[in-house]
Amino acid sequence: MSAKPAVVIDLKFSRAAMETALSGAFQDREVIDLGDPANADRDLSTAAYAVLWKPEPTLFTRASGLSVLFSGGAGVDHVLTLPDLPDLPIVRFVDRSLTDRMSEWVVLQCLYHLRHMTTYQQQQRDKQWHELALQPEARDVTVGVMGLGVLGQDAVRKLKIMGFNVIGWSRRSKQVDGVETFDEDHIDQFLAQTDILVGLLPLTPETRGLFDSSLFSRLRQGGALGKPVFLNAGRGGSQVEADVITALQKGVLGGASLDVFEKEPLGTDSPLWTMENVVITPHSAAASDVRALFAHVEKQIARFEAGEPLQHVVDRRSGY
Amino acid sequence: MSAKPAVVIDLKFSRAAMETALSGAFQDREVIDLGDPANADRDLSTAAYAVLWKPEPTLFTRASGLSVLFSGGAGVDHVLTLPDLPDLPIVRFVDRSLTDRMSEWVVLQCLYHLRHMTTYQQQQRDKQWHELALQPEARDVTVGVMGLGVLGQDAVRKLKIMGFNVIGWSRRSKQVDGVETFDEDHIDQFLAQTDILVGLLPLTPETRGLFDSSLFSRLRQGGALGKPVFLNAGRGGSQVEADVITALQKGVLGGASLDVFEKEPLGTDSPLWTMENVVITPHSAAASDVRALFAHVEKQIARFEAGEPLQHVVDRRSGY
Repeated sequence: MSAKPAVVIDLKFSRAAMETALSGAFQDREVIDLGDPANADRDLSTAAYAVLWKPEPTLFTRASGLSVLFSGGAGVDHVLTLPDLPDLPIVRFVDRSLTDRMSEWVVLQCLYHLRHMTTYQQQQRDKQWHELALQPEARDVTVGVMGLGVLGQDAVRKLKIMGFNVIGWSRRSKQVDGVETFDEDHIDQFLAQTDILVGLLPLTPETRGLFDSSLFSRLRQGGALGKPVFLNAGRGGSQVEADVITALQKGVLGGASLDVFEKEPLGTDSPLWTMENVVITPHSAAASDVRALFAHVEKQIARFEAGEPLQHVVDRRSGY
Repeated sequence: MSAKPAVVIDLKFSRAAMETALSGAFQDREVIDLGDPANADRDLSTAAYAVLWKPEPTLFTRASGLSVLFSGGAGVDHVLTLPDLPDLPIVRFVDRSLTDRMSEWVVLQCLYHLRHMTTYQQQQRDKQWHELALQPEARDVTVGVMGLGVLGQDAVRKLKIMGFNVIGWSRRSKQVDGVETFDEDHIDQFLAQTDILVGLLPLTPETRGLFDSSLFSRLRQGGALGKPVFLNAGRGGSQVEADVITALQKGVLGGASLDVFEKEPLGTDSPLWTMENVVITPHSAAASDVRALFAHVEKQIARFEAGEPLQHVVDRRSGY
């Protein structure tokens, strides 16, 4: 038996993925998986580490000996808003796989709208052979990426290689190679050039409700796609969904691809499901690979126990 | 009036695009546009150059003074199969725009199948919020690109940057940076590793009917996508459409994206229009930009008249 402190796992992920990933993980210490009903009343006071995705509110009362918290996803808003959150370092999940998958989704959706796939798929259902007259190429379209962290910068790089004209925005000024960037004081200049807006922002007090009617109305009209398109794969709380719907209905937006929603799962009464030129995915753009998550947590625990600084620690003031 | 020899244009493209592109093109010489009914009986014997896409069979009899033929598209099979084709240099259309647009289509379709968009779009129609259990990432999937010319090499490069594992095939051995390639003697090894097959081949006697039941049966079964997927944006004559349909029905193929067909437009009686996980586009993957075509032809004519060698001349023995 190992003397190393235990790790408690509270991840609201699919059980199958969890069980596969747990076999072989954390072999040098005890693992308390709260997804296993047998652990419902387990003493958690010996655990030094917690790996969390939408954890139980009682967790921090029960696990009173924690030293480090690990987020099970790239976002940490689900941790930062917990009641009784102890003043401990919170480590974000940064992972090549998660980054790559997010960029797959972003590039796929940008190409989908660029290449008028909604129209071509409708024509296919109608068995209609008709080449569209207006077919811009990627360089005719400006993609504006909001959020220039690890995910945003990878998306920017890949969109550029696919030929898109790309610009970036982050609240605080940030330099990204080969791309013009804008900060919070220059958002209007950014929006006025943007044909496809890509949201990859964390949820913070500053980003909550940021994607609203006012913002959509400042996007470029009459670009190569005719009307601007809105993509969001960051957090649903950043969008005012009623405003997204209105902007689509009024033609302020020409289309959207949404992976995140104010309330998930998206209710069956939402008009978004059936709106023209809207693509809905169920928060699947970049699912955390649970094995990669555990490998990342093991690496950070090893650093911590060796007295080295933790990586990817959340700055609580900025909220990400 | 210029003494430079005339150019005859016989392009079965949209008239609107043609007329826009012709205004301003070939300003130093006479242009005879056979798409204009006023030119139906024009004397073509003074023309030295012809720009062709599916031209009239009588063209070469009427235009008896030609020196160079220009194909209006990347493919030249529509020229090589003409009756009474004179023994003149044939220049292929190679263009950055055409290449970029082809890669947009290829990357879009590969990501579409990788990210199970058919299933997610069906779930959207059903207002069903369900994240799929099996979601491989690009590096788990091998894309096999057949055809390693300008188009194939650009697609290979972009697919690799999106994370796909990429291999290449060409009839004659060809080296491509960072990619394992196979030639006609090693097609079985190539197919056995391929999860998504991308056809970017010219139509030649060797490639006619190449994509048939036998070939599909040699693709990898049980890869990360479960079943192999077939993409074709080269030429419809390279595929045996009845075999594509059978392979899809029998589950030898798990999906397809087709931009080209044996007979175009695709007939409304084709089962392909409505088959599960099949994407149909109307030969629109990489439409020739007519202005770019004329700029390319003008450049080659200038070289020719200055006594410099023409570029992108077709090798009639290999058929492309």
